[in-house]
Amino acid sequence: MRTSIATVSLSGSLTEKLTAAARAGFDGVEIFENDLLAAPLSPEEVRARCADLGLTVDLYQPLRDIEAVPAEVFARNLRRARHKFDLMRRLGADTVLVCSSVDPAAVDDDALAAGQLSELAGLAADFGIRVAYEALAWGRHVSTYDHAWRIVEAADHPALGTCLDSFHILSRGCDPEGIEDIPGEKIFFLQLADAPLPAMDVLQWSRHHRCFPGQGGFDVAGLVRHVLRTGYDGPLSLEVFNDVVRQSEAGPTAVDARRSLLMLQEEVGAAGPPAPVVPTGFAFAELLTPDAEPLAALLGALGFARTARHRGKPVDLWQQGEARILVNTGAAVRRDGTRLAAVGLESPDPAGAARRAEALLAPVLPRRRAPGDAPLDAVAAPDGTELFFCGTRPDGWRADFEDVEHAPAAPGVRHIDHLALTQPWHHFDEAALFHRSVLGLRAEDSVDVADPYGLLRSRAVSNADGSVRIALTVGAAPTDDTVHAQHIALATDDVVAAARRFRDAGGRLLPIPANYHDDLAARHDFADGELDTYREVGILYDRDEHGALRHCYTRTIGGVFFELLQRDPGHRGYGARNAPVRLAAQHAARTHAGG
Amino acid sequence: MRTSIATVSLSGSLTEKLTAAARAGFDGVEIFENDLLAAPLSPEEVRARCADLGLTVDLYQPLRDIEAVPAEVFARNLRRARHKFDLMRRLGADTVLVCSSVDPAAVDDDALAAGQLSELAGLAADFGIRVAYEALAWGRHVSTYDHAWRIVEAADHPALGTCLDSFHILSRGCDPEGIEDIPGEKIFFLQLADAPLPAMDVLQWSRHHRCFPGQGGFDVAGLVRHVLRTGYDGPLSLEVFNDVVRQSEAGPTAVDARRSLLMLQEEVGAAGPPAPVVPTGFAFAELLTPDAEPLAALLGALGFARTARHRGKPVDLWQQGEARILVNTGAAVRRDGTRLAAVGLESPDPAGAARRAEALLAPVLPRRRAPGDAPLDAVAAPDGTELFFCGTRPDGWRADFEDVEHAPAAPGVRHIDHLALTQPWHHFDEAALFHRSVLGLRAEDSVDVADPYGLLRSRAVSNADGSVRIALTVGAAPTDDTVHAQHIALATDDVVAAARRFRDAGGRLLPIPANYHDDLAARHDFADGELDTYREVGILYDRDEHGALRHCYTRTIGGVFFELLQRDPGHRGYGARNAPVRLAAQHAARTHAGG
Repeated sequence: MRTSIATVSLSGSLTEKLTAAARAGFDGVEIFENDLLAAPLSPEEVRARCADLGLTVDLYQPLRDIEAVPAEVFARNLRRARHKFDLMRRLGADTVLVCSSVDPAAVDDDALAAGQLSELAGLAADFGIRVAYEALAWGRHVSTYDHAWRIVEAADHPALGTCLDSFHILSRGCDPEGIEDIPGEKIFFLQLADAPLPAMDVLQWSRHHRCFPGQGGFDVAGLVRHVLRTGYDGPLSLEVFNDVVRQSEAGPTAVDARRSLLMLQEEVGAAGPPAPVVPTGFAFAELLTPDAEPLAALLGALGFARTARHRGKPVDLWQQGEARILVNTGAAVRRDGTRLAAVGLESPDPAGAARRAEALLAPVLPRRRAPGDAPLDAVAAPDGTELFFCGTRPDGWRADFEDVEHAPAAPGVRHIDHLALTQPWHHFDEAALFHRSVLGLRAEDSVDVADPYGLLRSRAVSNADGSVRIALTVGAAPTDDTVHAQHIALATDDVVAAARRFRDAGGRLLPIPANYHDDLAARHDFADGELDTYREVGILYDRDEHGALRHCYTRTIGGVFFELLQRDPGHRGYGARNAPVRLAAQHAARTHAGG
Repeated sequence: MRTSIATVSLSGSLTEKLTAAARAGFDGVEIFENDLLAAPLSPEEVRARCADLGLTVDLYQPLRDIEAVPAEVFARNLRRARHKFDLMRRLGADTVLVCSSVDPAAVDDDALAAGQLSELAGLAADFGIRVAYEALAWGRHVSTYDHAWRIVEAADHPALGTCLDSFHILSRGCDPEGIEDIPGEKIFFLQLADAPLPAMDVLQWSRHHRCFPGQGGFDVAGLVRHVLRTGYDGPLSLEVFNDVVRQSEAGPTAVDARRSLLMLQEEVGAAGPPAPVVPTGFAFAELLTPDAEPLAALLGALGFARTARHRGKPVDLWQQGEARILVNTGAAVRRDGTRLAAVGLESPDPAGAARRAEALLAPVLPRRRAPGDAPLDAVAAPDGTELFFCGTRPDGWRADFEDVEHAPAAPGVRHIDHLALTQPWHHFDEAALFHRSVLGLRAEDSVDVADPYGLLRSRAVSNADGSVRIALTVGAAPTDDTVHAQHIALATDDVVAAARRFRDAGGRLLPIPANYHDDLAARHDFADGELDTYREVGILYDRDEHGALRHCYTRTIGGVFFELLQRDPGHRGYGARNAPVRLAAQHAARTHAGG
């Protein structure tokens, strides 16, 4: 029998995946859409590469959220599908996987689903393509293989068949015997995976996933309130274990643990630390570097001007709008490269913020000041980043800097939109709890982001008006293969203009694969020429119900890169949808630079 | 409020845990039984250490499977409890956690449970101890906090109260408001933990835990048989992803993937590799070492005799009974130490075994032979261990060795009982599938083993009569803190005699903490003096329904240590229950040696 493997089943770049599949003796591959989008190869080049390796392209996947929707939505879906069929022709793939819809707008109407799938199959047939419809185990209305088959049977189109996936069938405990009722020629594809049983019972949940109060989803404070009302006066005792804690240093874990109990006591109104003092903005971001020249060139191209120099230390202030970057070439610099070492947070009460931080067991840093310097309250975050609480008084930190002559800054960048801080592997939950508790920021839900060499978890914390946003990110495991750089995202009102100015000033943006912009065309409507501009400049795009996000990235210097970002009012995202493309491009750029 | 933390919530040795808890400002600790068993400190020393650190011992935990059992079982349970109460007095702990029973022998009878818990509390009161009864979320008959409280209320003993654990309550979705119906003075303890929600839905299961056919628990072959009966003639395609695959090298993953499909095709009767040739015993284990002296001393003390030397290479054969160890100081030796490099497997058809291995994509090794050497078929396992398929003919591998004069071997060791091979982090499922498919061995279920610095997973593969047993072990993550040594377990009919001979010959056994043997006394009945002997010699003990396992360990040389083992006929285990004690003792020995 012929054997095939989905590119998503292997790690690395698309080229690495294809090579590995061929070397292991597979006959063909399923091309997973995200692998193609992130690849610098055109569809024709992928096709040729597969042919050279002796691989057929057996499937393109997935097309999602197609069927059982209102007519005007289906018209848009067909337009999207046409884009993909055209792509598949270039790729040499003759079968497409359509998974059952998870769209909340989909309706529970098999006849409508069958009619629309039949129409889709008709369009596909014009391209010489077959449609394989598969029930996702978590599909909104269609979640079992026999249900998917009934719809395919009703649609009765020669270019429409079903795709069976052992995971989706067996994970729901369905009896696979009913498969024999399907004619073999209507089974267009068979995907195989196994999985451990039981995936997760309460015992496994307890053994591997307990965490400290405030790090999970339980209302632990609510429970404790009930207990306290009984008159209980024993200790609050933590009984927590998970795979991370079992192998972390005991010292930091114990501190993290006790911080969670201090927060819990505050929540239930039983004493607690001084009230939070929420930061109101970024005063500055401080980079340490052994060599200021590459950073100076990059900041200059971004439109920053070197406006001042510290009176007593080798620290330059670069400014544009309200974005301030300190470049420090002083004693604390490590020879291993440029990194984001400190963040200045504007605070209405720096001393109060520091008192709360100290009460919550944050390490208070010795004040690194020379005689005459303004006092600065600072603590260390779990990842080692120094957090300075800065007042907005004129005699604050800025008074330590002496203005230097400079050309005016370009008008493009307004302020720091957000910072993205990579966390050590073991410290993700700890970091989120730290920023919530010590700084009084709100945490959003975690999202998984696919890096070519692993899965990243990302979680944003922010204040109410979004003037302080920090994205915390961690890899699935400590490996050298994952991008560990931190970044500074700069807000601009016109990212296209800002990016062009940067390029004209000699800056180099991260190249974005053409496949990504082809996919944007399938996903969104754009004004005439808009997408061409994004493609030409290298702009990434995302949209939610509140508006769009447009952004692009500089090359990485040491462990830091910059993002230029244009955020429609109300858009709350960080471009997580585009992160896999960005990460793949960064891997490719690094490999290229190294090779 | 006072704060406390369970020692199981922190990583490391008991001493490290106590120090970390005190430094973070906790007022007290719960002592987790396994942490005490593995500690070299006596209970009095632990008590003194806590006092020095300003920590109270707020709880000892857990006592399991106590209540709602037949009278004779309860009598044994009381005896076990008395041991523990005595221990707690030495430890200075005045509250013990009793979790609701998970014993299949427990009956669903609240009155019986209440009566027996009351009797337990009466015994505890004699020791000045209080009993806190807690409902485990997976308790056999008692799994909710209100049920546990009803039993405590019915028992109505002043030394009996309840323990509340936020995980056990909230993980079951219980409404915590009912807690307010419990009088505060009857809540003896409150344990807090949070957990992520949802723990694991099908989408998460799919995203993080798909694996290759044969690596999980699904009947993928059964499903494929149904599909083939429909006349389906498309490819078998793998769509697998999980956190490990996402960050593994694509090349080995692809090989592992295709091997799983070859096995699947064999299972469904659609072609496949040559039939398995199951090995019938261990011909030898080969150690590479840069310095043969320490190994020679150890093997000599174990009763091995150097019986032969290879005609063309610096390889010695050490033998005792049917246990054969090759010590190789030749070219392949790495300067980083002694390791288990190769395993000779007795095979009824070495060439057939090699053909199957090659068909299943195992790397075939070049035959390392000089002119005149016997041919040896060998493949590499995923962890790099070389597997030699050896015939039992007299002109086989043994003919390459020339006998040397030697004293007779001691009669203690009969054969190699099993080998324990530590797997690289990413290769655990791959290793099990390799040994099952290539060697035709049967795999047992995975077990989790708690190391002081992380959780290990272990899985044994064996042939039908147990003459070939290999335990595959992997850590929860790549860390330098986990014991990575491999070991060779030697079967003996009298482990006490063998251990004493070893000691008398100058060998050093791994010291086992006294707390471990104190606990054995609580768990099992022994003949007069039997336990004293185990304590004196340093023997570990386990028992299942088929008999006992008695074993002890040598010190580690480089990356290898030896086990002496006495297995009652029918006992199928590997001492997994004792592994945490062994691992902690090895960490302690290493720390001691290093300090």
